[in-house]
Amino acid sequence: MSRTKPGPSAPGPSATGPIRLGQQARAILRPTTATMTTGFWQRRRQVNADVGIPQGPELLENAGNLHNLRLVAGAVEGAFEGDYPFQDTDVYKWLEAASWQLLQDATAGRDTTALASTVQGIIALVSAAQEPDGYLNTWFQSGKGAGRYTDLRWGHELYCAGHLIQAGVAHHRATGEPELLSVAVRFADHIDSVFGPGGSGKPLDGFDAHPEVETALVELYRETGERRYLDLAGYFVDRHGHGVHHHEAYCQDRVPVREAETVEGHAVRQLYLLAAVADLAAETGEGDLAAAAARLWHAMTTTKTHLTGGVGAHHDKEDFGDPFELPNERAYCETCAAVASIQFSWRMALLTGDARYSDLIERTLFNGFLAGVSLDGEEWLYVNPLQVRDGYVSAGGDQSSRRTRWFRCACCPPNVMRLLASLEHYVASTDGSGLQIHQYASGVCTGQAGDEQVAVRVETEYPWRGPVALTVEKTAGTPWTLSLRIPQWCSAYTLTRDGVPVDADVDDEGWLRVERVWAEGDRVELDLDLSLRLVSADPRVDAVRGCVAIEHGPLVYCLEQADHPDGGLDDLVVDVRTPLAVKERPDLLGGVVTVVATGRRRTLAQPNWWPYTPAGAHGDSGTTGARDTGEPVPGEALELTAVPYYAWANRTTGSMRVWLPTL
Amino acid sequence: MSRTKPGPSAPGPSATGPIRLGQQARAILRPTTATMTTGFWQRRRQVNADVGIPQGPELLENAGNLHNLRLVAGAVEGAFEGDYPFQDTDVYKWLEAASWQLLQDATAGRDTTALASTVQGIIALVSAAQEPDGYLNTWFQSGKGAGRYTDLRWGHELYCAGHLIQAGVAHHRATGEPELLSVAVRFADHIDSVFGPGGSGKPLDGFDAHPEVETALVELYRETGERRYLDLAGYFVDRHGHGVHHHEAYCQDRVPVREAETVEGHAVRQLYLLAAVADLAAETGEGDLAAAAARLWHAMTTTKTHLTGGVGAHHDKEDFGDPFELPNERAYCETCAAVASIQFSWRMALLTGDARYSDLIERTLFNGFLAGVSLDGEEWLYVNPLQVRDGYVSAGGDQSSRRTRWFRCACCPPNVMRLLASLEHYVASTDGSGLQIHQYASGVCTGQAGDEQVAVRVETEYPWRGPVALTVEKTAGTPWTLSLRIPQWCSAYTLTRDGVPVDADVDDEGWLRVERVWAEGDRVELDLDLSLRLVSADPRVDAVRGCVAIEHGPLVYCLEQADHPDGGLDDLVVDVRTPLAVKERPDLLGGVVTVVATGRRRTLAQPNWWPYTPAGAHGDSGTTGARDTGEPVPGEALELTAVPYYAWANRTTGSMRVWLPTL
Repeated sequence: MSRTKPGPSAPGPSATGPIRLGQQARAILRPTTATMTTGFWQRRRQVNADVGIPQGPELLENAGNLHNLRLVAGAVEGAFEGDYPFQDTDVYKWLEAASWQLLQDATAGRDTTALASTVQGIIALVSAAQEPDGYLNTWFQSGKGAGRYTDLRWGHELYCAGHLIQAGVAHHRATGEPELLSVAVRFADHIDSVFGPGGSGKPLDGFDAHPEVETALVELYRETGERRYLDLAGYFVDRHGHGVHHHEAYCQDRVPVREAETVEGHAVRQLYLLAAVADLAAETGEGDLAAAAARLWHAMTTTKTHLTGGVGAHHDKEDFGDPFELPNERAYCETCAAVASIQFSWRMALLTGDARYSDLIERTLFNGFLAGVSLDGEEWLYVNPLQVRDGYVSAGGDQSSRRTRWFRCACCPPNVMRLLASLEHYVASTDGSGLQIHQYASGVCTGQAGDEQVAVRVETEYPWRGPVALTVEKTAGTPWTLSLRIPQWCSAYTLTRDGVPVDADVDDEGWLRVERVWAEGDRVELDLDLSLRLVSADPRVDAVRGCVAIEHGPLVYCLEQADHPDGGLDDLVVDVRTPLAVKERPDLLGGVVTVVATGRRRTLAQPNWWPYTPAGAHGDSGTTGARDTGEPVPGEALELTAVPYYAWANRTTGSMRVWLPTL
Repeated sequence: MSRTKPGPSAPGPSATGPIRLGQQARAILRPTTATMTTGFWQRRRQVNADVGIPQGPELLENAGNLHNLRLVAGAVEGAFEGDYPFQDTDVYKWLEAASWQLLQDATAGRDTTALASTVQGIIALVSAAQEPDGYLNTWFQSGKGAGRYTDLRWGHELYCAGHLIQAGVAHHRATGEPELLSVAVRFADHIDSVFGPGGSGKPLDGFDAHPEVETALVELYRETGERRYLDLAGYFVDRHGHGVHHHEAYCQDRVPVREAETVEGHAVRQLYLLAAVADLAAETGEGDLAAAAARLWHAMTTTKTHLTGGVGAHHDKEDFGDPFELPNERAYCETCAAVASIQFSWRMALLTGDARYSDLIERTLFNGFLAGVSLDGEEWLYVNPLQVRDGYVSAGGDQSSRRTRWFRCACCPPNVMRLLASLEHYVASTDGSGLQIHQYASGVCTGQAGDEQVAVRVETEYPWRGPVALTVEKTAGTPWTLSLRIPQWCSAYTLTRDGVPVDADVDDEGWLRVERVWAEGDRVELDLDLSLRLVSADPRVDAVRGCVAIEHGPLVYCLEQADHPDGGLDDLVVDVRTPLAVKERPDLLGGVVTVVATGRRRTLAQPNWWPYTPAGAHGDSGTTGARDTGEPVPGEALELTAVPYYAWANRTTGSMRVWLPTL
């Protein structure tokens, strides 16, 4: 936690993407242009481009979201379709995803006509639905709510506005076209005319219980230069914690965020709010905001984050649990919370320059986030548990541990779409004196050395293999630093040039830094030991006591019923004394590296009626009629096959577990 | 599971209480008259009589329940108060509790004038609120719902009717007065005129998604002899599982109950339904109903019951989890579910004669049930977790792990009151050839030997001490059998007469049976080894892997923060190699036996940001910059004090845990 205060401004503008830090921003790093041309993520992004985003309009049509826009625009008659006042956000997030995709396609020289036309059509719908004064929310406009801003606890009007603003900014950045941004600006101006502190003359003094507008308003300030939006964001952030919503943690109102000691309440709400806190810290330079953001991130990762990077321990209220309360089968780990965690962490990485934030991004991307979409891009998980038991019965609905085509509350799918479509924005940065590579994927990363742009080509089969080849494609006349993130999980690596070790150490922030006068064509090779690992948890994580989990590189693994057809998973134990092995399986789940382990199947005697017995006395029958549970009898050694967690639930609907009891 | 089919009828009527099995009922046992004159339960019952029940009217007044009755009776103007369509049940359950208390008081020769008068006043209110056609539900009558029976999923009208019927039956049995029973009969007749199978000519064919009316209707049949009520109960029970409520498990509609393989969905709903299944099996003799009830009870106890006897693993939907999904901190274990479990189990004990059902009753009574009310009788728990973490933040509301004066949904407190007020009904039974003692408490238990009544005086300091002295007070001219339940947890006992061991064995059903020609004044002493125990769970209960719990006699113990002021509980481990000891503490928590154990406090190095590390490598710093969690360092031996779980949360609001990690 060496640099929690905002540092000096770094030169150079941010690359085009969700975050555009200006010259004045007190952040150490700026995101830079990167490409992901081949490899793991590009395959996932291609599915997103080919299947994910294109299916959006039809799904939004079927769910009534587009109908609702037409309804309030007066283009159709009927009633609001759906159950929630936040349904417009599904449209906005899809528009944001499509906008980033248009940028990708245009940059790559692909034809954007069809997608651009679809986007234009939906933007026209959104624009037509907007009231003359800028207000826009189809739920309230169609008479479902009692009236504008009468229900800030549940109405989600500003939450919807936030996603509209992010979509408007994205579309403008991606295409240069002003229409959607104009709609967003009109709504933002309307909100600014309504909300303000007591004494400001504004009619309302409060905040939306679902944060989102705050971070969006900062970005709107960055896009337009209009300071009012930044001030409004700051007002909303600091309005939390003073009882507008009865100090409910669910509403992020228990304590002021500057004073908070831990993350709490609804996970997505907490993390969208904290993204705004990091944004504000960068733009205003307020050290206590930066310190609060760092403190809460630390509380989250040390005590409230699952191995997969997923967050949110409770189904009920979708909220964070108590410290070290990290259940497996009831891990909520909403896909949206993974997205929000990545958004928050990336802002912190930029603010502080610390690579540990990108460590968490990597872990979340490869595990807790990516599991949220099926390999074919057509089905989704809203919750991402770390265990599905033998005998699991789905209650149906959004909170099932079963993949679903769409949800009644469909927040997650378009959230996945927009992150995948803008993923290259999270890959590289500059501090003005070189280039930091946060995520390893084949492509080209750029940086800034003083006034000169530098570029490095990355070639890797990561995360399946450890070598990452780095070739300087563009350099500067002065020395500059190539910084490579050494992942938190990685205990061994080599860095070589022409086979000769390069002398460089990892600093406290997780960066392997090489400063030199680089020449074009210079090539170094980082080889990360993917180090097949059995990991255990802090002993206070009660849920996984006596268990290990399998990791390989950045991937968390799990056992699935599909690979163990001869019985349930809950009776398996893993033999940690027998070495594990990786096995390439190009035939499986779109091509994965599996992990082969040795296990045993417990064969329990026919259970009596009570499953609790004197410790160490399992099997004792006693002398006077006591009845007990049978002794577990370890069976024959058998081969266990672990697959990457992100790929689970793409075959059968059987059981799954990440944490495995040991022999 | 030796006798799951109903057996032949046993002679002798049931004693006055919640269940009155007639001569024709196909149940092995009949509940008999018992008293609890001194000791553990009588103290709890005295608090219930002195504090619990008397405070009811004021609390019901404050919560609006009585207002709502006056409102629909036209006695006051205004609006419905409260949030739920089932609020009338709080009144009905209180009336039932007060009725059983009137019976206790009258039997003991105490003055009942004041309580009887209060009861009469409230019965008059209920009667005045009833519609001329018998319908009664203040929520719908005051216009809160769309209309009678339009919302069987959430309306709770028949659920309310069920509690009204039980109250009416109780008041009639306790006092002989007909008023409340008449109200109940009118409502039951109304329901019978409305609901029936397709083709019956009845306007509605469905069932209330919250069972309760079913078991109540069987009891109304038993009270009135009117066969229609039994038939209506059977119709409702068998209507489940056919899609009236979209096959939702929450509504007990996923599968027909005769085909069900496990308990599922909302725990209270499931168990009230199963109480009715057991009732019907006894009255109709249907073997498949009896088999289903036994099968589901077995599934519940083997895979879905917490150590405390509490059931219901999920806060969300208040439902059973998957098999072996038994979390500690999120154990829901609603107090009402404990009551429902006891009601179901007692019907099964009577139906089958098997003592294991009363084993579960004992465990639930002493632990999961009794924790639901504070020692002073003034505060309540709705949920009964097995762990409250260091750092627990209450979100407030009914589902908090904090004691509360009353709840928005106040189902639990009057449920506790009615069970405590009728507890002597669960103590003893007869099979026509003697007396079975199910629960040990000082008092007199009666039985039947042919046509003659027999009686045994019980003297014991159970559960604190193991000896139970049994003196025959009344005997028959023929041999008869005294059957004593040997608790499931008890691995050693002696039975002596005048210090000489009695030759008797425990049968497969858990009964120690002594058949002889008993003389008045015959005295035997059962000495149950309370056997201070460390217990562990079936290895499939992931939540408690590597942990033990402390039991002594029927009591489950827990650690509380109040007894361990020098740090959090979550860092403690128990040393299982050091013997435990009991310690009498008359000064503590109203007088308890505590358990003293030896433990250590883990001192963890300052945590790094990621709490998961290579297994067996805690503390390794690696060679290349890997960052890890500190090694747990066991501290000095220290004394741990465990208190009975039922007494937790009567001092501070700190942490608590039942399951303890071992050194």
